[in-house]
Amino acid sequence: MSELLYLEDLHVGQKFTSEAERITEADILAFAEQFDPQPFHLNHEAAKASIFGGLAASGWHTAALSMRLNVTSGPKFAGGIIGGGGEINWPLPTRPGDTLHGEYEILEITPSRSKPDRGMVLLLINTMNQDGKAVQTAKMKLIVPRRAPRELQESK
Amino acid sequence: MSELLYLEDLHVGQKFTSEAERITEADILAFAEQFDPQPFHLNHEAAKASIFGGLAASGWHTAALSMRLNVTSGPKFAGGIIGGGGEINWPLPTRPGDTLHGEYEILEITPSRSKPDRGMVLLLINTMNQDGKAVQTAKMKLIVPRRAPRELQESK
Repeated sequence: MSELLYLEDLHVGQKFTSEAERITEADILAFAEQFDPQPFHLNHEAAKASIFGGLAASGWHTAALSMRLNVTSGPKFAGGIIGGGGEINWPLPTRPGDTLHGEYEILEITPSRSKPDRGMVLLLINTMNQDGKAVQTAKMKLIVPRRAPRELQESK
Repeated sequence: MSELLYLEDLHVGQKFTSEAERITEADILAFAEQFDPQPFHLNHEAAKASIFGGLAASGWHTAALSMRLNVTSGPKFAGGIIGGGGEINWPLPTRPGDTLHGEYEILEITPSRSKPDRGMVLLLINTMNQDGKAVQTAKMKLIVPRRAPRELQESK
């Protein structure tokens, strides 16, 4: 049997947890240099004087790392993690040395009316640090396939 | 006079445009390997067979590149671009060779009640490709400082 999750395998309230990964200062600086070259993401002194009070990862780095966790050890949706968009918030900064993991919950399941082979899943994705606090909360709309009729029969 | 934008310098409907940057296939593969290692972001054949119909950048790559455009040539808010979160959508994929730029509009300005030195700005950020179509639309909540009383006087 496949371990991949199809729309029929999901229910509202279903939860998943990813593995954890550590983010280093070098990671933070490298991402910031490429994508978010602002002083508080690049320089300790500037970061101390900023609203962050110390070196903080770009929120988009937290988002990218969260996606890495989703892909490598989050819920294994058939067809992959294909998102149309959603909401994203950063209640706390990600700091050098933080160890992050993802906690997931299925919020909504909406079969497509026009495309019977798929549906939309609204997934809560909380990216948690080592203190159990969320550095990112996101609600993303994902496209998840239904089982093909042949696969439905095989699973009986 | 400083070119930095304070809360008092902004009005609803105000628009900005960034420079443009080209995204290469090598950029797309490098980001995907690090943050979104799914076949349709890494491999032409797998991408052709996927919902994308061809190699597509991770949405988080589009988001990160959009942030780079914001920082390097978007509206120059005093204090930098500090976002608490918002909404993000990817109406179209970003493709190898696309040339992207940012189009911005101030949607809301809300002075802080508790912190008189700042306010919240809701900024529309549309990331446009060379065909004038949006590959990303975002509405982000930013913290923007007010001028200090001394600076207000100096500007008179």
